[in-house]
Amino acid sequence: MALHFTQVTIIGVGLIGGSLGMILRRKGLAASVIGVGRRVENLKTAVELGAIDRFVGDPKDGVKNADLVVLATPVDTYDRHLTEWASCLKKGAIVTDVGSVKGPLVEQAERAMPEGVHFVGAHPIAGKEKTGVAAGSDQLFTGARCVITPTSRTDPQALEQVRTMWQETGSVVLTMDAHLHDKILGAVSHLPHVAAFALINALAEIRDQQIPSLDLAGHSGGGLRDTTRIAASSPEMWRDIFLWNRDNVITFIEAYERSLSQLKELIRVGDATGIEKELERAKQEREKFSVRPAPSA
Amino acid sequence: MALHFTQVTIIGVGLIGGSLGMILRRKGLAASVIGVGRRVENLKTAVELGAIDRFVGDPKDGVKNADLVVLATPVDTYDRHLTEWASCLKKGAIVTDVGSVKGPLVEQAERAMPEGVHFVGAHPIAGKEKTGVAAGSDQLFTGARCVITPTSRTDPQALEQVRTMWQETGSVVLTMDAHLHDKILGAVSHLPHVAAFALINALAEIRDQQIPSLDLAGHSGGGLRDTTRIAASSPEMWRDIFLWNRDNVITFIEAYERSLSQLKELIRVGDATGIEKELERAKQEREKFSVRPAPSA
Repeated sequence: MALHFTQVTIIGVGLIGGSLGMILRRKGLAASVIGVGRRVENLKTAVELGAIDRFVGDPKDGVKNADLVVLATPVDTYDRHLTEWASCLKKGAIVTDVGSVKGPLVEQAERAMPEGVHFVGAHPIAGKEKTGVAAGSDQLFTGARCVITPTSRTDPQALEQVRTMWQETGSVVLTMDAHLHDKILGAVSHLPHVAAFALINALAEIRDQQIPSLDLAGHSGGGLRDTTRIAASSPEMWRDIFLWNRDNVITFIEAYERSLSQLKELIRVGDATGIEKELERAKQEREKFSVRPAPSA
Repeated sequence: MALHFTQVTIIGVGLIGGSLGMILRRKGLAASVIGVGRRVENLKTAVELGAIDRFVGDPKDGVKNADLVVLATPVDTYDRHLTEWASCLKKGAIVTDVGSVKGPLVEQAERAMPEGVHFVGAHPIAGKEKTGVAAGSDQLFTGARCVITPTSRTDPQALEQVRTMWQETGSVVLTMDAHLHDKILGAVSHLPHVAAFALINALAEIRDQQIPSLDLAGHSGGGLRDTTRIAASSPEMWRDIFLWNRDNVITFIEAYERSLSQLKELIRVGDATGIEKELERAKQEREKFSVRPAPSA
């Protein structure tokens, strides 16, 4: 289908929102892209980088003429945003989001839509440890996956518009149940982030308590650098992801704790065969990864 | 000092031993490089790749005329090797190793040296998840660190020869107490490997027990790929490292378990401020890494 919006409003012109704005403008998918955000400096940068045409201070003004509103702020702010301006949306408008958690947030957003306005949840799985529009790029989504999470209430035409938009960004678009999305991302993304954050903090404590001469940056090899790269991600964003996907994250941390404890006990009792079996199992699972090209995040 | 060996014998012509052989031969640092190993096919590849001049079947024959013997087999085999051929070494010969654990192994090797033969422990911190001479390169050590661990018993001239050899490979050579080495590497290398192996196994269990549709390879993003890259490392090698550095590894796993449990509890009780503080602490520690160039492993 041909995609063309008269006005797209992006709430939160950061890495994701800003990169999407660049693509919408450069590919002529929207006649006008309006930015709404907290920090005027960032919005000025967004205009300079061509991520938005202009920005407005009042989100109610920003959304009232929009065909499409992209909610690209931290997930914990959705409720506040939707309460503030959902009633100003025009009939037929579409609201979509880019949040890393979907189940409870899609339900919340659907409840907040006025009659005749359609919500479609989406999660472009493209990010990096950098944040802000200055780190944005019209190539950010190329080859990355974007998960769209329709429900029984989702308007089919709105769904197609959001799907087509993400295809236009170069993403590989998947459709998935919102709660299954949260389980899968909880496992392959949220748990590894917990592991990386906790690992760096453990090493800092080992240094402070046990090895004063340990220079984590100086002594780190590529293994540690890779293993902990994502620990430099946004604390605000990940705090919200962990809380909004709390039940899955807790369940998966507990599975990780069991796995760690099992390996620790094998090492403690000196069970060479048992250790090797565990490591061999991990190696075989990990080696399956390399048959596919690595997406960007 | 000018470095020239008449004969260097490499026991275990794998990634590290083979790459060192390539450099010794290409830079003319040894008139002859002899390989000793278990697998004839690998030794033939080593000759083809120029890692060794020739190989011999009997290690006693291999070492008897060597000025320098490089022990580059899994650390758990040191005792068997040294018992087999240490008595054949000529007076003035130097034995060195490339093992990832040093304290107990340096003590073991020093005890095994006959009168007039000198041991110098070394650990070139360059590896990757690949193994075998076919993955070797004369650039493997370029810019990587090599830790040399002399003791009060170490012969100063032997120490200088080993130090110079590693400088010639392009390594940045550091000298460190063997037990401090094991603490530091236990923290920055062994613990991250435990974390990565256990994370992959936890994800496999989450898939098998809770999310049958989870395709770890297909759903993994760059975060998971990076976090678990080192889980594809050699099970045999890492089994031995964990066992030979057991006390440090157990202590550090316990610090990691505390750090994980702390973050889990903050998520469980919904302490947003506490979570953000933990993640901010991790981010700040991790961001210090990027001011230094990443070494190869």
